[in-house]
Amino acid sequence: MNEALLVARVRELFSDRIGDDGAVIGDQIVTTDMLVEDVDFTRSIPLPFIARKSLAVNLSDLAAMGATPSWAVVALALPEWALAGIDSFLLALRDAALRHRIEIVGGDLSSAERLTIAITASGRTSRPLLRSGARPGDRIFLSRPIGGSATGLHLLQNGWSMDGDPPRETAYVHREFAASAIRRHVDPEPEVELGMALSALAEVTACIDVSDGLSTDLAHLCEASRCGAEIERERIPMFPDLLSAAGTLGLRPQEVVLHGGEEYALLFTSSMRESELSTRLGRPVYAIGKIVQEQEVRIVENGVSRPLEPRGWDHFSASS
Amino acid sequence: MNEALLVARVRELFSDRIGDDGAVIGDQIVTTDMLVEDVDFTRSIPLPFIARKSLAVNLSDLAAMGATPSWAVVALALPEWALAGIDSFLLALRDAALRHRIEIVGGDLSSAERLTIAITASGRTSRPLLRSGARPGDRIFLSRPIGGSATGLHLLQNGWSMDGDPPRETAYVHREFAASAIRRHVDPEPEVELGMALSALAEVTACIDVSDGLSTDLAHLCEASRCGAEIERERIPMFPDLLSAAGTLGLRPQEVVLHGGEEYALLFTSSMRESELSTRLGRPVYAIGKIVQEQEVRIVENGVSRPLEPRGWDHFSASS
Repeated sequence: MNEALLVARVRELFSDRIGDDGAVIGDQIVTTDMLVEDVDFTRSIPLPFIARKSLAVNLSDLAAMGATPSWAVVALALPEWALAGIDSFLLALRDAALRHRIEIVGGDLSSAERLTIAITASGRTSRPLLRSGARPGDRIFLSRPIGGSATGLHLLQNGWSMDGDPPRETAYVHREFAASAIRRHVDPEPEVELGMALSALAEVTACIDVSDGLSTDLAHLCEASRCGAEIERERIPMFPDLLSAAGTLGLRPQEVVLHGGEEYALLFTSSMRESELSTRLGRPVYAIGKIVQEQEVRIVENGVSRPLEPRGWDHFSASS
Repeated sequence: MNEALLVARVRELFSDRIGDDGAVIGDQIVTTDMLVEDVDFTRSIPLPFIARKSLAVNLSDLAAMGATPSWAVVALALPEWALAGIDSFLLALRDAALRHRIEIVGGDLSSAERLTIAITASGRTSRPLLRSGARPGDRIFLSRPIGGSATGLHLLQNGWSMDGDPPRETAYVHREFAASAIRRHVDPEPEVELGMALSALAEVTACIDVSDGLSTDLAHLCEASRCGAEIERERIPMFPDLLSAAGTLGLRPQEVVLHGGEEYALLFTSSMRESELSTRLGRPVYAIGKIVQEQEVRIVENGVSRPLEPRGWDHFSASS
């Protein structure tokens, strides 16, 4: 069983409207995400980061739907070690909620062997951004450079500290590069303001957040829109210094950029040009290709076009 | 750290409006509950029961707030064993949702070592029932006999089968008694219709569902209402045949009824008399005592009044 099959069964049983980053209920958007210790994070990550990330992944879903955050509820299952540090968790959660103007209105507390955080967040928009709105001829945009999060995860898994300090015997990468990649992984910034701005632009046709990886999330968007895509390798904005650092770390930068997950950049489509859209938004966004009629995702590199397999994160596939 | 201290800290950091069975957002009620394998259930419980119960505990919270169910989102973390039986889980969840007229609009799927289900449910009411509305002189009501759920849990933990079949060497209790107590534990019925009816009756002043145990939930209600209560032991409706079966099972029926959790009966207060309220509702409800000014919960038995300690479920206390 892979995730696509399971999601298809869920849609069949419950509603074929399921499948966007959030559910649309009138002008309300609702999304839920659960983070589980040893699956989504380890105990070595300080609790304030876990708190912020658990809210950030939900805020990113609201952003992908173009919603203005309104409220959230938080279900927490706490093992002893987390109960001991619960105040730092709650304080970080409160600060993140204040910063993104989302009110935490309730929750549920219980005990468990593994720290588990399930947050449901709600927002409002009069024009929800769906995955299904892309049309042939639309340009495909990324909101920011990607590849940092998967690199940061690699560093943490190979002994780097949260501050970017390397393990004893290791190839050299710049400490600031390491720290900033790790930060991208453990403390992702949801694109809340951008999502709200995209919702207000009628020329923006579809949106998704890059949580599973560019290749997989682009495939999701194309499948929902019943179209295909052609992106240009050279136009994908890459996390600063990734190209030079990757070799030292034994990472293939192309793999990291195309398939690395948990970026929480927005991937969206619009008839507008990059310069025009960036000006309207007052910030850079990056055109990386275009939507095509034929239902296949392709990538062009050095003038050669080839199919792009969705090799991002699948929660239930042993191979990824 | 016990649950009361933790909840007090959460209220201090986020909102002192937190503390009812659900959050009130305009005319919308939102509640969230998480069930975790080996804490709230074991693998020996068939997946359809786990699915129904995970929805039922949320529906019971909506009922306690007097809300008409509208939508729910479901976050699921699935270990291998549950993934193998996921279809039976999803089908049972769909059937329960249809029966209670709540639409499952979205969710989140991931993997984990322990099956974890976090549901957030929403409903609507123009008059939410709060814990804080009880006034001295109000009568205290239970919606149905209690004590079955804790007895059912005891039977399951001591080797009875889901169908009420006893382990080999055991004292005799009637198979139908055992099966019905176990059913009360594994397949609780939320009082959705009653909650909606209570919300429509202006004479109903406060409500909570009996999830932690009568003694603890009554203490919660009194604390929120800044008042006390005096209940009569003989008037508390008891699960059928519990009194005779308890001795055989080594259970103290008084403990089971006063402190046993997961009943999902409604506990509510009203100025109306039992007969009048039952007639208005078209179903029996049970007056068990009255609200008093002095902020203490007392119980009268054989004409003697004594304090009733809250000895129901505390998620973080080692002693319970």
